[in-house]
Amino acid sequence: MAKTKAGAPLYHKLKDRILELIESGRYRPGDRLPTEYELCEQFEVSRTTVRQALHHLKLEGHIEQTQGKGTFVASSKIQQPLSSYISFDDYMKRLGLSGETKVLEFAVVPATAQLAKMLHVAETDPLYKLIRMRYVDRTPLKYSITYIPWKVAPGLAFEEIQGSLYDVFRGKYGHQLSKCVDWIEPILTDDQYSEYLEVAVGAPALMVRSVTYDTAGMPLEHSQEIFRGDRSKFVLERDLQSPSAKYTGLLPDPWQHEPDGAE
Amino acid sequence: MAKTKAGAPLYHKLKDRILELIESGRYRPGDRLPTEYELCEQFEVSRTTVRQALHHLKLEGHIEQTQGKGTFVASSKIQQPLSSYISFDDYMKRLGLSGETKVLEFAVVPATAQLAKMLHVAETDPLYKLIRMRYVDRTPLKYSITYIPWKVAPGLAFEEIQGSLYDVFRGKYGHQLSKCVDWIEPILTDDQYSEYLEVAVGAPALMVRSVTYDTAGMPLEHSQEIFRGDRSKFVLERDLQSPSAKYTGLLPDPWQHEPDGAE
Repeated sequence: MAKTKAGAPLYHKLKDRILELIESGRYRPGDRLPTEYELCEQFEVSRTTVRQALHHLKLEGHIEQTQGKGTFVASSKIQQPLSSYISFDDYMKRLGLSGETKVLEFAVVPATAQLAKMLHVAETDPLYKLIRMRYVDRTPLKYSITYIPWKVAPGLAFEEIQGSLYDVFRGKYGHQLSKCVDWIEPILTDDQYSEYLEVAVGAPALMVRSVTYDTAGMPLEHSQEIFRGDRSKFVLERDLQSPSAKYTGLLPDPWQHEPDGAE
Repeated sequence: MAKTKAGAPLYHKLKDRILELIESGRYRPGDRLPTEYELCEQFEVSRTTVRQALHHLKLEGHIEQTQGKGTFVASSKIQQPLSSYISFDDYMKRLGLSGETKVLEFAVVPATAQLAKMLHVAETDPLYKLIRMRYVDRTPLKYSITYIPWKVAPGLAFEEIQGSLYDVFRGKYGHQLSKCVDWIEPILTDDQYSEYLEVAVGAPALMVRSVTYDTAGMPLEHSQEIFRGDRSKFVLERDLQSPSAKYTGLLPDPWQHEPDGAE
């Protein structure tokens, strides 16, 4: 470990080495890692290298450091399925975790031009705006803003937005859900997201924006969710066999535009 | 804009406001944004607020700043499909962009315990190790490390790893590809990734780890790809109707382990 290959800084290699020990199960969630001093000795590197490696492992949620107590392997990230669909509450139950929803805002607002286009309504048409926090075992998992055209769910009640909106769409309003399109991007948390998600400013996070459609192609809701990066991991299965697995065409990107004159 | 609501810092609101102008197409890729001074005037905020908002927009790849020339709307992110499959080369052709592959490493290495488990081979069995960079219009898009059991592709040649490995698996080796499982996590780039991807250290990135299987359930390859966050956006369609759309069970996570004694 004392020497480095071209291009790979020492702390990067040390970080990978520690991560390997965690991911191979040699160190498990809750286990205490060797001290900084012991890591220096074991891998023949400087204190600075050890600290840099630990800093990165902490930011990405692999370890937790407690003042005076040491460094511990963090709980596993919550692996969330992308190729199938399950509601937040049901999924947490399956995982044996306790999920909780907190409604931060529930209002009716006029549609902006952008939201009107996305939800197939006229500008200034009334939209429900929901801001919700989801917690897992009392730790924030995601912050989400959802817009629903008023006409999609007239009389939507506060009690109904505590759980799965899909259940409410299907049950109370009789909508036939067809598909959901998701756009996934990595972002850094700013002051606001950091406060809600209880992480440092500039922590890694995933932004997932989505639109859900009914069988007639009518958008039922649009949401923007910010997932805590150190607690979230998404998993999906891609079929490489069936005809539908073949790439057929570009999905439109509602947030992107050609340079001037090209459209 | 001068006053802020509880919880939302001013710069966050300003950032959202500018992003809305970009995403609605009011400002398009290549367009010049108003100067810092003009933004202060227009939104009645301080220079600090404007700078913070622009800093975040830049880190996430929405704008580019050129010393002495001003602030410009960045090129659109490259939207990559997750629900279907298309090779990197074919996809770039479809987008009308020029894709390029650079092989950084091509070697045969012994399988570590972790890789052996993932690829269903014995520890120390020979694996091809490929490190490749993918560029789009000369800008780095992703850095990827791929491991392939030697027995899956004996005699794999250097020329063959310039393009789609799936094509080589199917064509030269006659493998029947069945599925690919992807795990997606947000990370921050460290020195090494930053150097390869040509971004600042600590920039947002997506790590996608995957395993591809043949129809007999044999793993053909495992890869770890780091996508530049300011250039990448993933899109997928979830079916909410067909029986296969229903969540049926947990996919195993090869990198996570129960706390000691729980397994």
